[in-house]
Amino acid sequence: MMKSKHALKKLTPYQQGKQTEEVKREYGLDRIIKLASNENPFGYSDQVKNSLSLDHGLNTYPDGHTSELRNALAKKLNVEEDQIIFGGGSDELIQIISRAFLYPGVNTVMAAPTFPQYKHNATIEGATIKEIPTLDGYHDLKGMLQAIDENTSVVWLCTPNNPTGSLIPKEELYDFMNKCPKHVLVVLDEAYFEYVETEFDSKIIEHFSDFPNLISLRTFSKAYGLAGLRIGYGIANKELIAKLEVARGPFNTSSLAQKAALIALSDDEFIEETVQRNKAIRENLQQFLKDLGWHSYDSQTNFILITTPIDGEEMFNYLLERGYIVRPVKVLEDSNKIRVTIGSEEEMDIFKDLLQHLHSSVSKEIKS
Amino acid sequence: MMKSKHALKKLTPYQQGKQTEEVKREYGLDRIIKLASNENPFGYSDQVKNSLSLDHGLNTYPDGHTSELRNALAKKLNVEEDQIIFGGGSDELIQIISRAFLYPGVNTVMAAPTFPQYKHNATIEGATIKEIPTLDGYHDLKGMLQAIDENTSVVWLCTPNNPTGSLIPKEELYDFMNKCPKHVLVVLDEAYFEYVETEFDSKIIEHFSDFPNLISLRTFSKAYGLAGLRIGYGIANKELIAKLEVARGPFNTSSLAQKAALIALSDDEFIEETVQRNKAIRENLQQFLKDLGWHSYDSQTNFILITTPIDGEEMFNYLLERGYIVRPVKVLEDSNKIRVTIGSEEEMDIFKDLLQHLHSSVSKEIKS
Repeated sequence: MMKSKHALKKLTPYQQGKQTEEVKREYGLDRIIKLASNENPFGYSDQVKNSLSLDHGLNTYPDGHTSELRNALAKKLNVEEDQIIFGGGSDELIQIISRAFLYPGVNTVMAAPTFPQYKHNATIEGATIKEIPTLDGYHDLKGMLQAIDENTSVVWLCTPNNPTGSLIPKEELYDFMNKCPKHVLVVLDEAYFEYVETEFDSKIIEHFSDFPNLISLRTFSKAYGLAGLRIGYGIANKELIAKLEVARGPFNTSSLAQKAALIALSDDEFIEETVQRNKAIRENLQQFLKDLGWHSYDSQTNFILITTPIDGEEMFNYLLERGYIVRPVKVLEDSNKIRVTIGSEEEMDIFKDLLQHLHSSVSKEIKS
Repeated sequence: MMKSKHALKKLTPYQQGKQTEEVKREYGLDRIIKLASNENPFGYSDQVKNSLSLDHGLNTYPDGHTSELRNALAKKLNVEEDQIIFGGGSDELIQIISRAFLYPGVNTVMAAPTFPQYKHNATIEGATIKEIPTLDGYHDLKGMLQAIDENTSVVWLCTPNNPTGSLIPKEELYDFMNKCPKHVLVVLDEAYFEYVETEFDSKIIEHFSDFPNLISLRTFSKAYGLAGLRIGYGIANKELIAKLEVARGPFNTSSLAQKAALIALSDDEFIEETVQRNKAIRENLQQFLKDLGWHSYDSQTNFILITTPIDGEEMFNYLLERGYIVRPVKVLEDSNKIRVTIGSEEEMDIFKDLLQHLHSSVSKEIKS
């Protein structure tokens, strides 16, 4: 018997959704609309299209310090360059943090449901996991504070939360940070940050001097539309960043990802347009669901968690056969949920028709 | 005090070499030749240049299963698809293996000098490290076998070894595998595999059924010339791969890297040409060093470790001021070494002139 960590026996690898080509073949469909991974349906900045080139260093190692992007990002965020760490998406930053701060004997606190990679990584590291149920999709911050003890190493706050979509209100966030013991690292996963409306932005990254135990994670995979390139970043005070840098691989982001992110960062207009269009389409869908009488969760993101009249898996299959891929979700014991990415206007019109159709047949069944 | 692992305090992040632009500015140079990271001076396959496009999925998540590349690679290597794991360069595979197999209480055996990421990652995980000095650049496999005990989890064999360049002879490798206890995972880091002459190829990946405790790591960063894209792979029996998959991030290689590697894999001619040219230039340099009376290590790679008449750091500076970046290396207590990537014919002609010039002035100094 080889000596792998015991935790590995408890885990299975991430099961990714079906690939579109596979689904097309299986169901004889011409077109598949993937609303399962919260990508940006409007693509990415035209400036990336026009300026990014494959001549940007395929055969030499990337700049392991990510100097150009680091410089631009520090200026944009108004932080120091050594307050930033880069990763292959925020996924890799979650790994790095787990590897640096979790091990047998400590515990880690997170919401349920929340982004599954926190639990997956904590399990690999052998840390004890404390899951605190959300309250209608919102983090139960009081419950989370109560769960913290002297052996707590990391608390994960996903805001807006994936898969519920709800944002931690800023007053509650500051209150939490003020009450949270300083020996606890608070990871604020803000993957959907750009989608949060300005008035609700907590601006907490302006307060790293008050909260040296805070790190905020962001990504170019969502609003920036660069999920295929794998690049994200963390912002914290520099002592914390220096510690995490030790656990970062020397060349963990590609040359092209660094360059594309640099270009994308300069195109504020694209982000504004993305956010505005997303909001309009999301609100339209929320109104539609309300009219239908279906429950959905508050969302400050490019996805909505919907309570469906049939089981989420059944709903998933109903939509899959009609060319729409969504994600079935369990919230505690409730499995009648799907998480749906906000697609383009046209994609969502057909999607609403599909929901309408299902709604009518379910209602008929109930009546008959 | 936050609860990071104790090991993090012992480590500093990877210090990358100076960036070329920085060196140009500092020394007023027009041109910098980087012979420090063992990249391919001949670039990469023209087929990649002609067929890779930025339209290959920037805004959607990569195929986390790497299906197309996996299929092509399995066929080429004559292994099953589930015998392969992909990583962001072999760097990330070393991380994944360390995270899965190393922890306080186990030990890990490696050569000295060898690729520094083994030790770095083992230190993060809190494993005990046993370093066995090389014998004129060759792994001391007997010494390594003797170092193995019931608490040994991983043995790292870097072949050809970085930074010495020497290959473990195939008979010795099989002998080692036959004698190595089955509870020990043997990592064969074959990053420079493509450069190894056919007659010396151990063909050990044909023997995973005999050696279920073996994994071989390879990369597209060296001979394939795609270091900037970050993609490499591991091959092992499927039970071992399944275990490691748990510790792999779901989207750890980019869409472009997968596509570029797929195209590159089909161009055997480019690899053959790279290997032939590299060999001719390397042999020419080796003869030159011999004529100069300088010691160099046997190499089956695209780099040579050279014993220099002055300290490696001094040598580094002498070359840097003249536009050549190499890597100073310490072998145990000897610091009079540099590791030099085999560049193009033209690059190496100038490099030889620089060595010749230094040689003459050092000889004069000794005489005077």
